Amino acid sequence: MWDEGKGGVKALVFDVFGTVVDWRGSIIRELERLGREKGVTADWARFADDWRGGYQPAMQRVRSGDLSWTRIDDLHRMILDELLARYGLTGLGEAERAELNRAWHRLDPWPDSVEGLARLKRKFIIGTLSNGNMGLLVNMAKRAGLPWDVVLSAELAHHYKPDPEAYHMPPDLLGLAPGEVMLVAAHPGDLAAAAREGLKTGYVPRPLEWGPNGKAHDASAHRFDVTARDFLELAAVLGA
Amino acid sequence: MWDEGKGGVKALVFDVFGTVVDWRGSIIRELERLGREKGVTADWARFADDWRGGYQPAMQRVRSGDLSWTRIDDLHRMILDELLARYGLTGLGEAERAELNRAWHRLDPWPDSVEGLARLKRKFIIGTLSNGNMGLLVNMAKRAGLPWDVVLSAELAHHYKPDPEAYHMPPDLLGLAPGEVMLVAAHPGDLAAAAREGLKTGYVPRPLEWGPNGKAHDASAHRFDVTARDFLELAAVLGA
Repeated sequence: MWDEGKGGVKALVFDVFGTVVDWRGSIIRELERLGREKGVTADWARFADDWRGGYQPAMQRVRSGDLSWTRIDDLHRMILDELLARYGLTGLGEAERAELNRAWHRLDPWPDSVEGLARLKRKFIIGTLSNGNMGLLVNMAKRAGLPWDVVLSAELAHHYKPDPEAYHMPPDLLGLAPGEVMLVAAHPGDLAAAAREGLKTGYVPRPLEWGPNGKAHDASAHRFDVTARDFLELAAVLGA
Repeated sequence: MWDEGKGGVKALVFDVFGTVVDWRGSIIRELERLGREKGVTADWARFADDWRGGYQPAMQRVRSGDLSWTRIDDLHRMILDELLARYGLTGLGEAERAELNRAWHRLDPWPDSVEGLARLKRKFIIGTLSNGNMGLLVNMAKRAGLPWDVVLSAELAHHYKPDPEAYHMPPDLLGLAPGEVMLVAAHPGDLAAAAREGLKTGYVPRPLEWGPNGKAHDASAHRFDVTARDFLELAAVLGA
């Protein structure tokens, strides 16, 4: 059981892609459906991995200043346009490309996410802290029933995680001390960066994020304030 | 009935103080309780009106550049510190002043607000567009059960309404055209400023905002896209 006296956590902010939603399974399903419609066969799982794989390098171009501030929606689209040719989906018009790009607004939650968040919401302010842009996060939450008290995005700081400014933003906007805010994430590096800025950390590994053959994160070098198997266990550990 | 074809509204953003919550009745109740505790008698309704009355001049100091960006929480506190002496509440310590200032986080909704918002949420993205700071709005929503999809504040634009930048922010962050966003407010001037930036307008007069003897707003010089008596009628008019 989490020691209340030690913590005083008032708000939980969640990484979203991989932590709250199963981006990979969702994107593969959208690509498979589109492939069937268009009569195109391809390795859609690899397409999904490549799409996601282009994400860190694209954000790095923003972090380094090579690109001025650019939303994830637009980064996703830049990557998508390159992949479509490579995977033989060249016949898509502008409206179809835009619609496919919005697949990232339609990601399905992990099976425990909605119920776990509803429980955590009874005790804590719950919000996002995602590199996804505000519009994406709002559309996703509305479709999936994610009951956020507040949607916060790196977009509000114009700094992508793990830049320090991204972690300063939630306590600043909520009027809380950094130590009153816990980042919940499936990614040790995200949590380590949050801890450096004074936030508490909650680790929820999502071993299926990269699929049944994906490699689990190596968290052995890290220490977290709490660790839980899923959001229901997190709620139990935090007494919510 | 609202003509869908004419509109294409996807998100409703709400002014909060006076439109969603009864700031005056709520503040008077907090002051009366504190007065009883402290054995102080005063005209608490006038105190509430003076507190709110200091708000526009304080924001004007920010708009004009006389003050750098300052949150409503801090503006409320500057005004409060002046009023306490004037009303004989001089014995309050720092913690008590801070707690009283947070009365603005504990405002009660109008009787139709929660149910009306729940209905509107089924059809539209619903959010705030308030000069109140993010922390204030999140705390208020959590206490009062206001089911926002997204909390948006002038704080995110660092411009108070009716500066144009405040109205550009919601469509920009939601990835919508200005005409796909409707501001709902009890204040004709707020709505007129939103309309100048291309937003749709929904007028919900709140004749009790300034109390039973308050003066109603003169809306005769304005035209709004929709007008409704309360949020339930607004939901009906908008087909939600």
